[in-house]
Amino acid sequence: MTDALVIFTPSGKRGRFPLGTPVLTAARQLGVDLDSVCGGRGICSKCQVSPGMGEFPKHGVTVDADALSPWNAVEERYKTKRGMLDGRRLGCQAQVQGDVVIDVPPESQVHKQVIRKSATQRDIVMDPATRALFVEVAEPDMEEPSGDFERLSQALAEQWGITDVRADLALLRRLQPALRKGEWKVTVAVHRGNHDAAPRLLDIWPGFHEDGLYGLAIDLGSTTIAAHLCDLSDGRVLASSGVMNPQIRFGEDLMSRVSYAMMNPGGDVEMTAAVRAALNTLASEIAREAGIDPQSIYETVFVCNPVMHHLLLGIDPVELGQAPFALATSGSMSLAARDLALTAVNPSAQVYILPCIAGHVGADCAAVALSEEPGKSKDMVLIVDVGTNAELLLGNETRVLACSSPTGPAFEGAQISSGQRAAPGAIERVEIDPVTKEPRFRVIGSDLWSDDPGFAEATKAVGISGICGSGIIEAVAELRLAGLVDAGGLLGSAEQTGTARMLPSGRTHSYLLHDASAEGGPRIMVTQGDIRAIQLAKSALYAGARLLMDEMGIDKVEKVVLAGAFGAHISPKHAMVLGMIPDVPLDHVISAGNAAGTGARIALASVAARDAIEATVHEIHKVETAIEPRFQEHFVNANAIPHAVDAFPELHKIVTLPEVSFNTGGGGGAGARRRRS
Amino acid sequence: MTDALVIFTPSGKRGRFPLGTPVLTAARQLGVDLDSVCGGRGICSKCQVSPGMGEFPKHGVTVDADALSPWNAVEERYKTKRGMLDGRRLGCQAQVQGDVVIDVPPESQVHKQVIRKSATQRDIVMDPATRALFVEVAEPDMEEPSGDFERLSQALAEQWGITDVRADLALLRRLQPALRKGEWKVTVAVHRGNHDAAPRLLDIWPGFHEDGLYGLAIDLGSTTIAAHLCDLSDGRVLASSGVMNPQIRFGEDLMSRVSYAMMNPGGDVEMTAAVRAALNTLASEIAREAGIDPQSIYETVFVCNPVMHHLLLGIDPVELGQAPFALATSGSMSLAARDLALTAVNPSAQVYILPCIAGHVGADCAAVALSEEPGKSKDMVLIVDVGTNAELLLGNETRVLACSSPTGPAFEGAQISSGQRAAPGAIERVEIDPVTKEPRFRVIGSDLWSDDPGFAEATKAVGISGICGSGIIEAVAELRLAGLVDAGGLLGSAEQTGTARMLPSGRTHSYLLHDASAEGGPRIMVTQGDIRAIQLAKSALYAGARLLMDEMGIDKVEKVVLAGAFGAHISPKHAMVLGMIPDVPLDHVISAGNAAGTGARIALASVAARDAIEATVHEIHKVETAIEPRFQEHFVNANAIPHAVDAFPELHKIVTLPEVSFNTGGGGGAGARRRRS
Repeated sequence: MTDALVIFTPSGKRGRFPLGTPVLTAARQLGVDLDSVCGGRGICSKCQVSPGMGEFPKHGVTVDADALSPWNAVEERYKTKRGMLDGRRLGCQAQVQGDVVIDVPPESQVHKQVIRKSATQRDIVMDPATRALFVEVAEPDMEEPSGDFERLSQALAEQWGITDVRADLALLRRLQPALRKGEWKVTVAVHRGNHDAAPRLLDIWPGFHEDGLYGLAIDLGSTTIAAHLCDLSDGRVLASSGVMNPQIRFGEDLMSRVSYAMMNPGGDVEMTAAVRAALNTLASEIAREAGIDPQSIYETVFVCNPVMHHLLLGIDPVELGQAPFALATSGSMSLAARDLALTAVNPSAQVYILPCIAGHVGADCAAVALSEEPGKSKDMVLIVDVGTNAELLLGNETRVLACSSPTGPAFEGAQISSGQRAAPGAIERVEIDPVTKEPRFRVIGSDLWSDDPGFAEATKAVGISGICGSGIIEAVAELRLAGLVDAGGLLGSAEQTGTARMLPSGRTHSYLLHDASAEGGPRIMVTQGDIRAIQLAKSALYAGARLLMDEMGIDKVEKVVLAGAFGAHISPKHAMVLGMIPDVPLDHVISAGNAAGTGARIALASVAARDAIEATVHEIHKVETAIEPRFQEHFVNANAIPHAVDAFPELHKIVTLPEVSFNTGGGGGAGARRRRS
Repeated sequence: MTDALVIFTPSGKRGRFPLGTPVLTAARQLGVDLDSVCGGRGICSKCQVSPGMGEFPKHGVTVDADALSPWNAVEERYKTKRGMLDGRRLGCQAQVQGDVVIDVPPESQVHKQVIRKSATQRDIVMDPATRALFVEVAEPDMEEPSGDFERLSQALAEQWGITDVRADLALLRRLQPALRKGEWKVTVAVHRGNHDAAPRLLDIWPGFHEDGLYGLAIDLGSTTIAAHLCDLSDGRVLASSGVMNPQIRFGEDLMSRVSYAMMNPGGDVEMTAAVRAALNTLASEIAREAGIDPQSIYETVFVCNPVMHHLLLGIDPVELGQAPFALATSGSMSLAARDLALTAVNPSAQVYILPCIAGHVGADCAAVALSEEPGKSKDMVLIVDVGTNAELLLGNETRVLACSSPTGPAFEGAQISSGQRAAPGAIERVEIDPVTKEPRFRVIGSDLWSDDPGFAEATKAVGISGICGSGIIEAVAELRLAGLVDAGGLLGSAEQTGTARMLPSGRTHSYLLHDASAEGGPRIMVTQGDIRAIQLAKSALYAGARLLMDEMGIDKVEKVVLAGAFGAHISPKHAMVLGMIPDVPLDHVISAGNAAGTGARIALASVAARDAIEATVHEIHKVETAIEPRFQEHFVNANAIPHAVDAFPELHKIVTLPEVSFNTGGGGGAGARRRRS
């Protein structure tokens, strides 16, 4: 016998190879997905395989005990020094000696599949832009003079198939010492751009570099900046963290920030500096949290709305404040982190910003589209990414529409009297007994309800400090269900409602949700102003959805996906009681968590995904809410809770909304004005 | 008649076009080289043509007076406002009405041919990397949302065929105001890299931008930095200037600078900062001299030896000081000027550095090869670029060899007792009467010889301050011809030579060339040390040439080209008396001026030339002088004036070298040591 049959599982790929062929070589020739960082030198151990022995009737082979060459010194040394699971071999060292079945375990596959989230179980094939590669470089030869960089390039081409690599001066400065210290063996971090961008060396280490390379997926919102720190080799999230967007001091919502830039020369520069400083703080903190060196962060992917996009890039957003809302640039951006003054990460780190769809529909919406893929849905799905600005996508396989709607920051707990961001101590769930009108609630940081034994003890440390976005939505919906607020949004008096929790406050009333004043804490109320703020926000959101439905020519949707920083926390029932979203059967409302952030993670994990979303954004039709007269009409009708006109039959199947009215003739429609006008 | 014959001269291209076709359109369709910056809008006037009238028997046509449409309002306005030569028309406005012969004057050709220099009459076709282009950009449309940058890109593709253009953040910041100020008409500076680099926007102006774009061609030498400021549209040199390389304070020659970097941690950083500061000063000064804004400098091309190359880039040159003399990178470099801290030029300016040939044979040698094209020579030509380090190229159509030789700075007037750089007041030409042993000389700044009437008056203002590189070469050669120095390089005493100008100086003698001490000026002498310095330098140069000849398997060359900063000033006869260059008939010695600087200018003017030299350097075989034992042998033999072994028959046909010897037994061979060892 001069050759042998080699069968790889799980791929089922098979072929005959001469005896003595290393398993890694056979895998490469068959196109089997078997990892290797060191290129087959027995250093990196990424190519570990599990050979099977005995009968394989399915494959029609019998594998003898000596089907692979005996352990060699390289494997022995590796196992002694680093340890290896029983039954494993190094694919680069073990050679084929007879017919054999070789299993490639998941961790040895380059294109490891990352399970994104349990809700949708969509797998992301790892295809990161930045990889660490071990190379052996030819030594300089006076007879054949060429630069060290040119010989390194040649080695990358020969050993990894990476051609035409580039390097900046900072890397060239470190090249010669690294090559000599590593005795002409180095590990390089190579970044491949998408499209036809030339690959770029980001870092170099003498010898084999064991430490990981990391990336940040950042959802840069108007109110909060959320980041995931991911391992670039497998997409694993090491840490997630968030900070407030410090631009809030220049204006709470997008349009007030654009106004700030228009009214204050240099205002845009101030806001750019503020957000970049916050990003550096965030990067340092998340790295510390994960216990990694921030210098090992080589990539950052951003998703954000157009105003944040321009302010991050240092472009005056003034044109985004007036029709025709022209973006300076709508395409994806590939930049150096230093161009954005991101000094906390590696100095060679690269930045990718997803493309924008239109002047009001940004890279965050593109990220939601990348994560939720409405264009692949058979059902007509409405995706709502709730934030200070809401991004809405409506569509199915045939067509996808998008718009943004200026909900304002109320859903994030801002502009709410007792509002706060979602953090320990914030009330996040509320129930109000329809008979006693008494509330119970839960706070972030404890699984107990406020009427459970031990609640006071459990929340003592963090206190009960306010109410977050999901909490205020539930509170207002529960007030409506309990008959404490009417369809017009008016809170009743103690007399009208029969509960002492309704406290007078000037000419209006407030509901006392929790009184911690005895312990020196706050009195947490839901005020008439809070109801109005929520009405404004939810009207804008619903009006946006209706505008998309008009454009699509439909009057109901089949599925609603709630996304956004607190999408996972919104109770679908309460959202529908409020009339935030169109009427659908409750089990057709799905929470997708932070879909924009997930989109950012997908783009961080996969260059192919970047290409895909860049192609997709051109197929998404944008609907402009700001100049559409019907938006005003939809907005006014949506002011009522749940709605002045639309019937919400699915909602009425599961809840009964008390027919109360507390309007004694005064201006109940105060909420019916447009925020952005 | 519905169409007409249009014939363009000088190209002879012809075709039939429908009546009413603009001349510019006809030219473009035929591929006739007719310029236009504004794209046919009657703004830039670059497309001016000269229609011919009457009989053209050569072309077989008769052109009627009404063969072109009458002057229109655009042409009238242009002529009134800016003026136009009689007989000229704007090619974009004049329309074909009948058979016509149209001459495209040189200034209307995009690929204007620039006459490089009278010596070789080689033409350079203009093909600059950076051009100014006028574009009309579509206004934003809410229905079809796209970024302003994307619409500008589309306009460049449609109007100029430039696709996939890139822009950095600084430009994107200025894009929206410029488009609106120019009412959606802008001029952009577009830079095309060589190879497949994506075109890049360097600047943007509202409307039509009239001012020129400029570039610097810089020959960064060890001792001097020479720059030409050129108009990028036609290659014209507006100003030339030079400064001393401030790195001289760290070491006079290359190896002493490498030593400085090795001995002093951070020494390379110091030298990098020094040369970059000098480059900024030079750029500012040359722009002031030419009366242009340094911000309108968009490109800089550098040629330099490998040590200067690394120190410019900020790469420690330590590896260049020891075998195998590995360059960090040998390929051409395309960088942003800001990467080199060149802050005096436009912030978006681009830098191109020619490729290096090998560790001791740099981009300056590549530039000489680009300028002198030894690989296209039928004769076996030796090209000698004389500087602190000499670059030598030997070859013809079949093969080209290169080496560098460490001549030291003596040829540039350094290490010479009365030496100075070539500047007004420096003695540049010397003759010594073989009978009277009396000298006469000329100084830079006057055409008079020192024994001409009026010389004293003419040189009074600048004085006579020293002797420059070409002056010392002539002086030493004349001393040899006058029998005042012997073949071994020893100066005779007053007694031995019979002239009182030989003054004793310790155990040796000096020749008094000029005594200005009566007027408070210096006494300009040629000392024994000066002779030794010149011997060292010329021995290194000749040894390098011989080494190349050995490698080529020849013992004489057919042609010698003297290049270098003072190549134009070296007298071929004196160079050969000294034995600087191999023996050839005198009329086969050609001065090429600053060939490296010319090579830099060619690369500045033409992207095609960059591609060409990048291909050529791989065909040049490098010979390493530093480790070649025969170099030592050649060096020792070359110490004599003109040579200890080689016969120099051509030289002896035109001069008689006195058979003198002043060696009285002492160490006459003091020069015979290797400088770099």
